[in-house]
Amino acid sequence: MAGNTIGNIFKLTTFGESHGKAIGGIIDGCPSGVKISIKKINFELNRRKTGQSNIVTPRKEKDKVEILSGIINNITTGTPIGFIIYNKDKISKDYNNIKNIYRPSHADFTYTKKYKIRDYKGGGRSSARETVCRVIAGSIAKQIIKNINICAYVSAVGNIKLNKKYNKLNLNIKNIENNIIRCPDKKIAKKMIKLIKIIKNKGDSIGGIITCVIKNVPIGLGEPVFNKLHAELGKAMLSINAVKGFEYGSGFNGTKKKGSEHNDVFIDKNKTKTNYSGGIQGGISNGMDIYYNIAFKPVSTIKKTQYSFNKNTNKLEKLKIKGRHDPCVLPRAVPIVEAMTALVILDYFLLNKLYK
Amino acid sequence: MAGNTIGNIFKLTTFGESHGKAIGGIIDGCPSGVKISIKKINFELNRRKTGQSNIVTPRKEKDKVEILSGIINNITTGTPIGFIIYNKDKISKDYNNIKNIYRPSHADFTYTKKYKIRDYKGGGRSSARETVCRVIAGSIAKQIIKNINICAYVSAVGNIKLNKKYNKLNLNIKNIENNIIRCPDKKIAKKMIKLIKIIKNKGDSIGGIITCVIKNVPIGLGEPVFNKLHAELGKAMLSINAVKGFEYGSGFNGTKKKGSEHNDVFIDKNKTKTNYSGGIQGGISNGMDIYYNIAFKPVSTIKKTQYSFNKNTNKLEKLKIKGRHDPCVLPRAVPIVEAMTALVILDYFLLNKLYK
Amino acid sequence: MAGNTIGNIFKLTTFGESHGKAIGGIIDGCPSGVKISIKKINFELNRRKTGQSNIVTPRKEKDKVEILSGIINNITTGTPIGFIIYNKDKISKDYNNIKNIYRPSHADFTYTKKYKIRDYKGGGRSSARETVCRVIAGSIAKQIIKNINICAYVSAVGNIKLNKKYNKLNLNIKNIENNIIRCPDKKIAKKMIKLIKIIKNKGDSIGGIITCVIKNVPIGLGEPVFNKLHAELGKAMLSINAVKGFEYGSGFNGTKKKGSEHNDVFIDKNKTKTNYSGGIQGGISNGMDIYYNIAFKPVSTIKKTQYSFNKNTNKLEKLKIKGRHDPCVLPRAVPIVEAMTALVILDYFLLNKLYK
Amino acid sequence: MAGNTIGNIFKLTTFGESHGKAIGGIIDGCPSGVKISIKKINFELNRRKTGQSNIVTPRKEKDKVEILSGIINNITTGTPIGFIIYNKDKISKDYNNIKNIYRPSHADFTYTKKYKIRDYKGGGRSSARETVCRVIAGSIAKQIIKNINICAYVSAVGNIKLNKKYNKLNLNIKNIENNIIRCPDKKIAKKMIKLIKIIKNKGDSIGGIITCVIKNVPIGLGEPVFNKLHAELGKAMLSINAVKGFEYGSGFNGTKKKGSEHNDVFIDKNKTKTNYSGGIQGGISNGMDIYYNIAFKPVSTIKKTQYSFNKNTNKLEKLKIKGRHDPCVLPRAVPIVEAMTALVILDYFLLNKLYK
Repeated sequence: MAGNTIGNIFKLTTFGESHGKAIGGIIDGCPSGVKISIKKINFELNRRKTGQSNIVTPRKEKDKVEILSGIINNITTGTPIGFIIYNKDKISKDYNNIKNIYRPSHADFTYTKKYKIRDYKGGGRSSARETVCRVIAGSIAKQIIKNINICAYVSAVGNIKLNKKYNKLNLNIKNIENNIIRCPDKKIAKKMIKLIKIIKNKGDSIGGIITCVIKNVPIGLGEPVFNKLHAELGKAMLSINAVKGFEYGSGFNGTKKKGSEHNDVFIDKNKTKTNYSGGIQGGISNGMDIYYNIAFKPVSTIKKTQYSFNKNTNKLEKLKIKGRHDPCVLPRAVPIVEAMTALVILDYFLLNKLYK
Repeated sequence: MAGNTIGNIFKLTTFGESHGKAIGGIIDGCPSGVKISIKKINFELNRRKTGQSNIVTPRKEKDKVEILSGIINNITTGTPIGFIIYNKDKISKDYNNIKNIYRPSHADFTYTKKYKIRDYKGGGRSSARETVCRVIAGSIAKQIIKNINICAYVSAVGNIKLNKKYNKLNLNIKNIENNIIRCPDKKIAKKMIKLIKIIKNKGDSIGGIITCVIKNVPIGLGEPVFNKLHAELGKAMLSINAVKGFEYGSGFNGTKKKGSEHNDVFIDKNKTKTNYSGGIQGGISNGMDIYYNIAFKPVSTIKKTQYSFNKNTNKLEKLKIKGRHDPCVLPRAVPIVEAMTALVILDYFLLNKLYK
Repeated sequence: MAGNTIGNIFKLTTFGESHGKAIGGIIDGCPSGVKISIKKINFELNRRKTGQSNIVTPRKEKDKVEILSGIINNITTGTPIGFIIYNKDKISKDYNNIKNIYRPSHADFTYTKKYKIRDYKGGGRSSARETVCRVIAGSIAKQIIKNINICAYVSAVGNIKLNKKYNKLNLNIKNIENNIIRCPDKKIAKKMIKLIKIIKNKGDSIGGIITCVIKNVPIGLGEPVFNKLHAELGKAMLSINAVKGFEYGSGFNGTKKKGSEHNDVFIDKNKTKTNYSGGIQGGISNGMDIYYNIAFKPVSTIKKTQYSFNKNTNKLEKLKIKGRHDPCVLPRAVPIVEAMTALVILDYFLLNKLYK
Repeated sequence: MAGNTIGNIFKLTTFGESHGKAIGGIIDGCPSGVKISIKKINFELNRRKTGQSNIVTPRKEKDKVEILSGIINNITTGTPIGFIIYNKDKISKDYNNIKNIYRPSHADFTYTKKYKIRDYKGGGRSSARETVCRVIAGSIAKQIIKNINICAYVSAVGNIKLNKKYNKLNLNIKNIENNIIRCPDKKIAKKMIKLIKIIKNKGDSIGGIITCVIKNVPIGLGEPVFNKLHAELGKAMLSINAVKGFEYGSGFNGTKKKGSEHNDVFIDKNKTKTNYSGGIQGGISNGMDIYYNIAFKPVSTIKKTQYSFNKNTNKLEKLKIKGRHDPCVLPRAVPIVEAMTALVILDYFLLNKLYK
């Protein structure tokens, strides 16, 4: 209800503030008897972590997951999986100057109004630090549905866009991880990195787009009417910090097409000629590739001097944000997008067992 | 779980197939003591109904809601509101030729695979006829949060686009209802209508975009982390038949912007200079206008001859779809978008009472 | 949330007031491909109906279910099952004299206080008429888990008690239905009926106990910790009108026993010597018989003159309740207990599929 | 779904095995701005803890709660409250001899069958150690609804029964805490303690009854039909380890009464003469005292030699359970009953805000 849980069957609930003691979560509804590699979880945490390259924030979060329950000898037992990461490299004094100021385009104002109290240190609960828990749970989910391939990558940074469709790319984890922006096209990757460096030097930030592709999805995932598979995927993506839009299959471009162009004709008993549907029809997966784009706004926290309102002085004031921040969240958001995808797909995979 | 319910507090559950006996629903969690006008519900049903103009399907659904419980002397009692509409103008024999064929880009294939049984008449449960129930519940929701103004309109049909932003338009129900496409700009409306007529004559269909604007939203709606207000709105919109994308505030265009351009500076204690955030920060409404775009694909059902796979003969066959269909769903989808918006906003309005 | 839904997977939501237009419900999450007999549903409705004998209320509800969706040619399709019964034999004027009076031990007072508005005719939503919907859904549930045998019977009326344990009785539907009190022991049944007739003639009412036995339950039903199988069964039973208590297995008598007497020793790989556990251990079914007792208070509505407070005159007044009522709800509650049992067992049966 | 969460609005999710690394939980939906005393939480933990007297297990769990998030300077922030207790005094080798044996009346058999894997050390997840988390969350709940008085006590141990009704006792925390069995009547308390010592010396265990009384409950708590207040309380109580029965108000004795005796007549606008209803009518609190009895079976773990089935050898074997256990759980269950009561009452208190 209060929004810290996701999932119907495979349920993740998270807790923790950016500069609090610890962050963590509980996974309830995990099937028993599945082998889980902690190494794989930490691999995903490393893809998300700060300080991984010179185009992300230099903060040093050495995040390694600690599993507290629900897994014995690397096998899930069916009981809830509790996990925790203690917060370490936090410099809370960096935030003293924003105690009474609402940072532009941050959650400072709305949290204060909603809860009448705000943890101003590092954004508190509204910080993207919370996504650490999503990545942990997502990695566990990935390991359960290991035959389903989930692959996200950066397809645009500002105006620099990868114009090839996903099925014209050589999509694999190696190709994506071999550059610091996580774009599978080396040339475009270079341009993106160059742009981010320029932006960074100006103390500014820039937005972009992540594309996610799911291959080998079983037919039948998704519950029609209100819980269509793409509606759940959309909600999960829109719940990621800084996301402003979601489109799947033909998306916004599809609105310009005619039905006779856009319809995916069945050419076999399980296969369509085109895939404008994006692998989902009537809210249910049809076995074709699922693909979607996610729009990320430029990070709100910038080094450049800004102005904002001080709720104590009731005046517009100069604001100089300290702390260490990302000029572009895209590369670090790639594993988050994959994690959220895995959570939704596994949840609907389990739900679909009810029809067998 | 099985997807026929929406809402946390104000919960709508619907039932019914396109060509079944009746469709209807139950609203649970409706506050007591609210005056409900049946006339207003029927007004919204009329906006959605078939046969309302020459650019929509000529089917004649004379839908008038019948309230069965939960309202006495036009006042809600706090008990569940049951409602029903019996299906009348249905011509089921039109569908005999598609019994064994999966219509392109329809839910025929996925329903058959998921449930092993399919009601092929009129699309059964996957038909947009189900949205009648959404419009009924949405109208009730609108009447409860009557101070919040929800206004949707058609902003693009195929390549014809209304380029003015919502705040440069004269947005009101009269202006939107005074043309059959429901676009508040008369000139553009004419062009859109002309395009749809051409498309219709070819037996084809066309997509488009609906924009929705919510004014006078209280500060504080939305539950952070997984249930951000825009994530719920996005899910609700993506659950509408034919929707392929959702973007709010600066949306996909915002990805091209720099933080210093995109940040919404507070210039007063409750007001920002710009509103790229689209009225939502950290997943919680900040009192500014909420606005978003919804992408609709071209209707899958077209009169033009197509090909598809027959699951009995195992062959690609010529397919000529009978029945009466929309060349463009946009005008009839406007009240559906508003209804889904009202359901989400009321639900989060009620949830927010818990913090008072 | 507002309490009109039961179930996790197989979800029943109901609507309707005693003297409103209709009562009905929606079942969401029903597996597809199951054969449903409407005749069997009506058989259960007949067991519950008024006027069935001279020890129940003479009201005449000729309830026959009308299925509106989700079932085609008697086979479930996996889409929501909508059903309805229009209210007929209602005499609303009988209730005019209680408009401003809170009937003793009824919900009149609490509904008025909670909702600020009350449908005083026939108890409105708080009337046991609502259980018609439970019986319908329960009969559908029974037909899905047809290998699991659910059998309830009256084991006490006032001080007249059936002292034999369930496993010393010849439990079957025939034996239970062959007398109007639904007690499988003929001698005791006679005594119970005699007592009820005396009570009825005095314009009074009497309580009693129903025992329910479930045989052939698969091992593994129930989710530990908060959703233990007996906790869900207990909640379901306590949700039935007039129920004051629930005990399973050794129940309240078990509190007097020593561990060495009470422990159920495994004498085979799937079987225990005794069954004080009542077929549930750690909240999960162990394959042995599940059995429990449910305490029903005497019906609050009696013909005898009573006194109560009039909220308008602010005075204690003589109260003479008109209308037609049951001197003892037990015989009509038997099918309701079975229905609620079926709903819980099927729900947990489906949930347990997630672990396969 | 998988049963490790309780609550609609104030939601507690717990994790942890008896002999795992840690146990803990997350509270989501806690109102912001409430002062929480950690000392009060630890006070309740001390009431529950092992080794508190010579009639409970001598294990030494020095449980002190560690709050990880959601509370700043002792004030709740509205974000999820994460908490943890690391397991310390565990002697896992005590359990090696039961690895392949299903202990009588324990969850060993059912967990093994359900999950195909079992954490046999200390009962794993099925251990009552899990209730530590309930006591923590319950204490937080108590502090939020501090005007509502919740008071539980031991009213029977084996055949020794406190025959006075709750309203004839001097009920307060001091009176209850001044003896190790937690019975407010000193004489009866002595007898109970004596009995438990005899039982303990025989290596056996004994059951009993806890009575719980809630005073000063606001009118209007409870959601009718399926979520009646007493149904939720019943479920919460039945979810506590070793509970076999629940009755409220007149309970099982009420079944013997006539309506004319049992009906609670309103003698004032907010007050009834008698209170057989137990403070709840139609599932909604009426402002009178709520009271109920909870039946606890004798602890399954006894020192006495027993027999049970070994799943490896397929033979009935002698079983000598090591470890340190309670001869009677009643005194330690008192704070658990209060905690579960507080969780339900707070949850329904918050839900009721939706009708204001």
